Order: sequence, then structure tokens, then C-alpha cells
Amino acid sequence: MDPDVVKMVHGAGGVEMQKFIKNYILKYLSGSGAEVPLEFLDDSSVYNGVVLKSDTYTVKPIFFPGSDIGRLAVAGSVNDMLMIGAEPKALAMGLVIEEGFPFNDLERILESVSKTASEAGVYVITGDTKVVEKGALDKIIINMSGIGFRHRYLDHNIGVVAKYRGGVDFRWLLDRNIRPGDKIILTGYIGDHAIALLSVREGVGFKIDIESDASPLNEIVDKALEVGGVVAMKDPTRGGLANLLNEWSDKSGYGIKIYEDKIPIRDEVRAACGYLGLDPLELGNEGKAVIAVVREKAEEVLDAIRGTELGRHAEIIGEVTDEYKFVVMETVIGGRRIVPQPIGDPVPRIC
Amino acid sequence: MDPDVVKMVHGAGGVEMQKFIKNYILKYLSGSGAEVPLEFLDDSSVYNGVVLKSDTYTVKPIFFPGSDIGRLAVAGSVNDMLMIGAEPKALAMGLVIEEGFPFNDLERILESVSKTASEAGVYVITGDTKVVEKGALDKIIINMSGIGFRHRYLDHNIGVVAKYRGGVDFRWLLDRNIRPGDKIILTGYIGDHAIALLSVREGVGFKIDIESDASPLNEIVDKALEVGGVVAMKDPTRGGLANLLNEWSDKSGYGIKIYEDKIPIRDEVRAACGYLGLDPLELGNEGKAVIAVVREKAEEVLDAIRGTELGRHAEIIGEVTDEYKFVVMETVIGGRRIVPQPIGDPVPRIC
Repeated sequence: MDPDVVKMVHGAGGVEMQKFIKNYILKYLSGSGAEVPLEFLDDSSVYNGVVLKSDTYTVKPIFFPGSDIGRLAVAGSVNDMLMIGAEPKALAMGLVIEEGFPFNDLERILESVSKTASEAGVYVITGDTKVVEKGALDKIIINMSGIGFRHRYLDHNIGVVAKYRGGVDFRWLLDRNIRPGDKIILTGYIGDHAIALLSVREGVGFKIDIESDASPLNEIVDKALEVGGVVAMKDPTRGGLANLLNEWSDKSGYGIKIYEDKIPIRDEVRAACGYLGLDPLELGNEGKAVIAVVREKAEEVLDAIRGTELGRHAEIIGEVTDEYKFVVMETVIGGRRIVPQPIGDPVPRIC
Repeated sequence: MDPDVVKMVHGAGGVEMQKFIKNYILKYLSGSGAEVPLEFLDDSSVYNGVVLKSDTYTVKPIFFPGSDIGRLAVAGSVNDMLMIGAEPKALAMGLVIEEGFPFNDLERILESVSKTASEAGVYVITGDTKVVEKGALDKIIINMSGIGFRHRYLDHNIGVVAKYRGGVDFRWLLDRNIRPGDKIILTGYIGDHAIALLSVREGVGFKIDIESDASPLNEIVDKALEVGGVVAMKDPTRGGLANLLNEWSDKSGYGIKIYEDKIPIRDEVRAACGYLGLDPLELGNEGKAVIAVVREKAEEVLDAIRGTELGRHAEIIGEVTDEYKFVVMETVIGGRRIVPQPIGDPVPRIC
């Protein structure tokens, strides 16, 4: 790889992106002393009790089965705030539009932003629009930043964790929080979003009856925290489940064991991955969360999640272990295989 | 103008951009009930005491005399928070990079972000990086969002206003706050940034010894609020001084009178505007603020601003009036002319 220029893989949510962030971004921008600073590389940051999140959406195409860039932007940023234990409250939208972009398409996107924000209980309260000349951008990109505040059930939730742990050393749901014995819940099918996007991508398109399920996860998070015992949450976007579990393992210093037969995946998605040569564990997802829960409360949290519309296919897919320090999958045919952190997401521009 | 597609002018900070925001953005995204909501179209929003700001920087070229896209992004977003009466505290940086972008250039930008953040007393505490394929973006764009909190001198400042007004109906420094008799201070030379950019733009380039002066305005704001009596602040970016004053006039319902001979402008910039056919009042600026102050405190605030490095060329350039409801300039040759709101900024992609 040419070492002197930025490549697609540096934004693709895997090993190379992590190196890029450590070697470049953190080299210049660490040391804030914020409550949850940049260096933690969690899904959101926290300053003085305020959760702050920024994400730019460059998805291609901008309209795809089941969703669009507007819904994706709201749901994606809202979910990253939820994952750390916040209730998202206000969004800031930065639009960059290529000259010649149809107003009809813009209205569809804005309507979708509005509708999704309403589902998530947030408002866009500020923003900015830039227009660049034709050829300087591929249609439209959206930055969705936002703020949130401590979730109303977060203290209760951490209290439940503390009860089983004999105390805790965290105030937010960080990647580093997982400990041996914690159970890992996945809230729904993996791969839908990436496969839906691929099915309509120029030069790849194929016929499949799969829709992207980008959605705000407020209800799932509310129910899980209401039960209590959640130690960490993260959405398996770029780099998929494989990347997420490796990040948790790296940051906590513990291993993770998952069971292949427990991972919710649709037959059509499994089949599509087969003929496209893609590993479903590495595909980016939207509208899904991975939730680590103290063992004693795992079944109860699972039941609460299954009671929600978006969480009805939730499963306990594995657990944290101190037997090793990496991610291992017990396969259906009876063996064990290491699940490595992907180099990058095999499907670019999924969010 | 083709009514069905987005044009450059819709992002150019003038009449057309205002129409675009009202007809499209606000149609879908108003009604938040935030303390300072989207509908106010002020430089920042406020939710529950937290000031939230988003701005995306698409400046071209990304390196230019005196500054670069990194410095511009930090200073621009910090200044918009300062203008409403906040102390900026934390930034969220969304990078979108074109594949093939040199790491050397990226490091220059990140170093500049870091240095400018340090000048402004803020940290980048979170962010996101997306990489898109070659041709899908012109090099790099940066979204800089951020949060701030009520300025330590804001209550004192508003107290001073209230003393001379017999009370006030505002808690933040909003565009709508200006009243007849208020004096208008401009903190430095206009036109430098736009002319510096133009001088190095492909196909336009000319030789001129002007540098962009994009800078965080913390010191000027601190000094002005410490004196007290400030009713509104705004930075004359896209659409320049002409757009800013028209926005204040529209939102307050009062007129504004300015004096041509009081407006600080360098001879070289005036000359460049002459041969390029540009109106310096319509050129976008960086590192400058326009500050409305109650008459009784105007000279004192001016002196305080002149005591700062960036504010040493500050002038009182005019005042708010109830004689008419638009912006009028008393010209050097003795006449009066209406200063219309520009259609858009004559120089695209200046920020």
C-alpha cells in the first residue's frame, strides 16, 4: 500500500483505520482531559456531562431499499449517543450539496431526517449548508452531530452492575468496561444493511428481497437500561461484528467467545454473502446494537429487548472470557476459529 | 435560474440562501422549542444551556496565504459560538477525505487544527473520518461542530445593557436584539480573507501581499463582554458586511446607517476589488466581528477591543436607526446609498 496517501481502507472501520487514527489523528488531537476524550475511541465523547457526537454520512447510493442518507444520518448519530448511555436531545446538520442536485431529492431526504428525528425524540436545532461546483462532490453528504445527556436509567443501570460486581469504576458505557462472565447480546439480524446497499450499487446490483433497517434504537436502550446490568453497548457499523468484538477485546484486555449458531442472520443474507465472497461478520450494520450485560441479568435484559419491535430477533451470542485475549467463534461444524479484526469493511461507503 | 436543482448561490450566504433555508430546511425542521432554535437563524443554537454549532468547510484551495482549511474550521466554529455569548469548550471534527490525499497535507491540516484549538482554548474531543473514492470529492472537507457554555461575563454584560435599557428581553446575543441608538463596531479590516483566497485560486491568481486573517476571536469577545453593553455580535462571513447588516435589520425590524469612511479596509484590498469588479461589502471575512453596543458604552467597548492584537483597527462604523427599515451607507462623496442584501457571495467556496 502506498504509504504516502490516504486510501479507502483508512475510513473503513478496521485495523487500518485504527492505525490511521492512532498515528495521525491522536498524534495531534489528544490530551483534552474530557470526561470521555477522543483517546478512548468510543462511539461518543463526553464533556462536562454533555455527550457530543459527530458523524459524516457518505453512503452510496443515497436512496436504497428501506432507507436513505437522511434516515441513516439521524439514526446513526442518535445510536452512537445512546450506546454510551445518553439520551440524544439535539442535532446539528451540516449539508454539503453538489450543484445541480435535484430539489425533489433534497426534499425526500429532509422529510426523512424530520421523520426519523421525530421517532428518536430529537430535533435538528442548527445546521449549515454548503454547495460546491459540479464534479467537486458525489451528490450530497451529511454531517450529523449532536448532543445528549445522561440517560434517565443510567444510574439505576450502573447500580445494578455494581451490585453484582461489588462496585464499578465507570460512569458511562465504554468499550473498556467488559469483564469475564459478561454475556453478549446482539439485538437483531446482521448484514441486512450492507447487502441491501450492495444490491442496488452500480456495477454490482442483484435481485434480493432485503431492506436496510437503519433505525434509532431508543426503545431497545430504554428497556435494557430499565432492567439494568448493562456494562457496554456499541453498534456494529463499519467493520461489522468482527471489528466491534475485537475493539472490546483490545480495550478491555479480555477475550470474547461467540457461538456461530446463535448469530441472527437471514438465509438470503447468508446466501448473498456466500456468492459474493463476503464474511457476514465483517459487514457493516445499521439499526443493531451489541450489548454486554452482567451474567446475572442477561436473560432478563434479553427478554426486555425481545419485547421491542426492533429487538424481537435478539440473541445472546457469546460471553467475555479470561481464557484468552482475542475473539473466538465456536463454529456450527464443531471447531473453533479466531475472528480477526478486519483490515477494513469489505463494502465501502455504507454509511 | 433552473428552479428544480440546487445552485452555488443557495450556499452563498445571501438572499437566495435565506430563501432556500426558509423554503426547504425550515419547512421540515422547525418547531424544536430549543432555547435558541433553528428558526432564529442565528450563528449558533442553544439547547438546555448548551450552545451547539455545526459548520462544514469546503474552502478552495485548502492552503492559502496566511491560513488553511484546518485553522479556518476551528476559528470559524469557535467564533460562531463566541458570537452568541458562549465560551466554546469542545469540538467534534468530521473529516471527509478523497482517496489519494497526501498524508503530508493531512498532517499540516491536523497540526493547524491543534494549534488553532489551543489558541481558542478548546479541544477536539471526538470525530469521524470517511474516505471516498477518487473523483467523489475535491480533496478534503471538514465539518467542525462544537459545544460551548454561557460566557463568564455574559450575565454582567446583559446587566449593563439592562441598566441603559431599563430591562431586556434576551439571555443570548441574538441578531434580533439591536435597537435604535445602538452603535456598530467592526473589529478589523474587511475583505482580506476573500482577496487572499482569490489571489491563489486557479484561473484567477494575481500578485498581492494580503493574507487571510482567520483567527479565533476569544480575546476580543472577552474584553467586550467584560466592559458590558453588547447586544449582538456576528461575524461577517459569507455575504460579508452587507449580508450581516441586512440580517440584523430584517430580524430586528430597524434600519442601520453606516459611514463609508469609517469602514476599515486596506488600500490593496480596495484596489483589488476595483479591478476585479467586487463590492468589498459583500466579500466574506474571517477573524472579524461586528458588534452592536448600547450607545452609552460604545466608546469604552471600542477602546477595550482596540487594546487587543486582532482588534487594533476596530472602528465604530455606524448605528441602528428607526428612520427607515433597511441598510444605508453615507458615502465618502457625500451621498447616501442603500446597501442591499447580496444575492450571494461573489466569491464561492471561501469557507
